[in-house]
Amino acid sequence: MAPGCFAGDAKTAHGVIRYGDDEVVAVIDPSHAGKSVRDVLAHLESDAPIVASVAQALELSPTSLLIGTAPKGGALPPEWRSEVLAAIARRLEIVSGLHDLLHEDREFFTAARTAGTAIWDVREPPVVPLFGGDAYAVKAPVLLTVGNDCAVGKMSVALELVRAAKAAGTNARFVPTGQTGIVIAGWGISVDRVISDFAAGAAEQLVLYAAHEGAEMIFVEGQGAINHPAYAPVTLALMFGSAPDALVLVCDPRRARIETYDTPTLGYRELIRLHETLLATVKPAPILGVALNTRALTEGEALDEIARAHDETRLPADDVVRFGPERFYAEIASRIVKRPQLIAAARA
Amino acid sequence: MAPGCFAGDAKTAHGVIRYGDDEVVAVIDPSHAGKSVRDVLAHLESDAPIVASVAQALELSPTSLLIGTAPKGGALPPEWRSEVLAAIARRLEIVSGLHDLLHEDREFFTAARTAGTAIWDVREPPVVPLFGGDAYAVKAPVLLTVGNDCAVGKMSVALELVRAAKAAGTNARFVPTGQTGIVIAGWGISVDRVISDFAAGAAEQLVLYAAHEGAEMIFVEGQGAINHPAYAPVTLALMFGSAPDALVLVCDPRRARIETYDTPTLGYRELIRLHETLLATVKPAPILGVALNTRALTEGEALDEIARAHDETRLPADDVVRFGPERFYAEIASRIVKRPQLIAAARA
Repeated sequence: MAPGCFAGDAKTAHGVIRYGDDEVVAVIDPSHAGKSVRDVLAHLESDAPIVASVAQALELSPTSLLIGTAPKGGALPPEWRSEVLAAIARRLEIVSGLHDLLHEDREFFTAARTAGTAIWDVREPPVVPLFGGDAYAVKAPVLLTVGNDCAVGKMSVALELVRAAKAAGTNARFVPTGQTGIVIAGWGISVDRVISDFAAGAAEQLVLYAAHEGAEMIFVEGQGAINHPAYAPVTLALMFGSAPDALVLVCDPRRARIETYDTPTLGYRELIRLHETLLATVKPAPILGVALNTRALTEGEALDEIARAHDETRLPADDVVRFGPERFYAEIASRIVKRPQLIAAARA
Repeated sequence: MAPGCFAGDAKTAHGVIRYGDDEVVAVIDPSHAGKSVRDVLAHLESDAPIVASVAQALELSPTSLLIGTAPKGGALPPEWRSEVLAAIARRLEIVSGLHDLLHEDREFFTAARTAGTAIWDVREPPVVPLFGGDAYAVKAPVLLTVGNDCAVGKMSVALELVRAAKAAGTNARFVPTGQTGIVIAGWGISVDRVISDFAAGAAEQLVLYAAHEGAEMIFVEGQGAINHPAYAPVTLALMFGSAPDALVLVCDPRRARIETYDTPTLGYRELIRLHETLLATVKPAPILGVALNTRALTEGEALDEIARAHDETRLPADDVVRFGPERFYAEIASRIVKRPQLIAAARA
C-alpha cells in the first residue's frame, strides 16, 4: 500500500518487492492503477499489478497488507485509515513500519481483535540493555554501511553484499536496523525508535544475535547520515553500538542537500574523514569502499561517477545494485580485518 | 534519598542541594547518618542532616522524596522499594529521574493513588516533533556545554554561567536536558529518554521555549560525551538540535577513560577539533572556552591545570564552580557571535 507515492519515496514497498521472500501480489496506488510494477519502476523486476484500492487487491487473495512507505515523522496519512480498516475487516495481517503504532490506535486495535487478525508494528522496539561492550568480542568481521543521506541505498548495499558473500561460500548475515530491513528479514530492531540512551545498546544486541546465530560475516544496515540535522544521532548509535571493523560508504552523487533540509551533503573525502575520525575515538575502523546509487544516471554517467569516486578516494567504487555486487564484495572482503576497541592506558 | 551513595555519584542529589530553589531538609543515606551534608561534601555548602531512613526524615516534615541518584541503566535498586512506599504512605510527592518510570509500576501507582499523592517521573518526555530547523531562527545567542565524559560538570557550568549573566544584567536562561537540571529548574526534557529519531527535535523545542520566554542568552545543558560508547548519540542530538552559536568545553582533567568503559577520554585539542568539525557540517560553532572540574585537585594543582588548558587551547580556561563564573563569563560573552546554519548551494 503506497497510495500516490509508489513511484516516489515508498522505499519500504520497493525494498520488500526487490529483496523480500514473500510474494507481492499487488501494489495499491490509484495514481498508477492498471500498470505493473515493472512499468513504473523497471529496476524492481516485478510484474505485480498496481491496483487502485484494497478492495481490488483483495481479488488477488493477499494474506497481509504492508504500509509501504514511511512518511516524514511517521504518522499515518488520515485518508489511508478506511483502506487499512477494509483490509482488517477481511482478516489481512497489517504490517506497518510507521512511528505511530497502529496497534495503539483504539480503532485499529478493536477492529483487528474483532476480525481476529494481527497488527505487526515492526518499528516497535523491544526493551534492550545499555551498550555494554560485548560487541567488541564478536569474532566475525562486522561491516556497517553509512551514507551521504537517508534513502540512498544503505540497506540495499548491505543486502547485495550479503548475497555476494553467500555466493562466495561465506555464511554472511544481514542485520536489519530499520522498518524495511525488518520486514525483509523477519527480525531486527528499528533503532531510530529506541530511546536515545539505549540506541547503541540496540545496535550491539543485533550484532550479538547475528554472531550467536553463527554468522561468519555481519553486514549492518546503516541509517541516516552523520551530518543529518535530525537523524545523525541514530547514525552515530550504529557506528559506536555495532562496533564495526569496517564501513562501506553509500552515496547518491546527485544529492546536493540532506533531504528536506538546507544542509549540504558532504563529499566523499569529507565523509571518509569524518566517519573515520569519530570511530578512531572508540574503535578504529576504515571505510573500505564507495558504493554509489546511480539510478538517476545513464550508464555512461554512472561509470564516469564511479571512476571519479575511485580517483577521489583511491578506494574500490561501484554501483552494486546496478552492476552486481561480486567484484566490489571481493575487494572489500580481501581488505576487512578484525579490529580491537581502543583501550585507555591505566592512570599512573 | 541516596542510600549508600550520597558521597559518591548521587549527582541529582548534589545538583538539587547546590542549585535548586527548594529547601532540602534531610538526605537519606544510612552510611553517613548522623553527619551533615557539609561534613561529607563541603562544596555543597549545606547544613542539612543526613539520616538513615525515610522514617527519620519524616520527622523533619518534608513534602517530597527525591530519588537522588541515577544508577547506570536507570532502574530502581530493589532494596529502595519499601522506603519509597513508606514515603508514599505519608503522602510525600515522589520525584524520580530514573529511566524506569515509577508511575508505571503498579505497586507505586496504586499506593500513590490510595494515599492521594503524586509521582513526578521527570525523565518521562513529552511527545515532540522532528527537528525542523526553527532553532536556526532564534535571535538570542545559544551556548551549549559539552565535555570529556558524563558527570564532569556540564550542568553546573551552564548554571554558573546563567548566574553570572544575570548578575551582569542579561536575562539568561538555563535549558535543562537531564533529570537533575529538570528538578532544579522545574521544566525541561530528559533528552536521553526521547526516541532517537526525535532527540534533536526535543533539543530544538527546549531552545524555542527559552527563546519564547524572552531569554536574551540561552545556556543549554550538555549530556554525555562525543566519544561515549553508549551516550554519544544524545550528545550529538544536543549539538545539532539546539543549534548552538558557541560551545563551552567542560572537562575533568583527571578522567582518563569514559566512566565504566575502557574508552580513553580525549584531550582538549582533540575535543575541540572533533566538536567543531561535526558542527561545521550543519551549523558552524566554535568552542569559546574550557571550564575545568578541579574538585579532586589542590588549589595549586587546579591553577596549574587551568594554565595548561589555556596554553594548549589558547582559550579562556577556569574552574567556574571553584573560583566563580564572573571572569570566565565575561570572556565568553564578549566572544559569542550569532551564527547562521550552513546552506547548500542550489544545484545547477
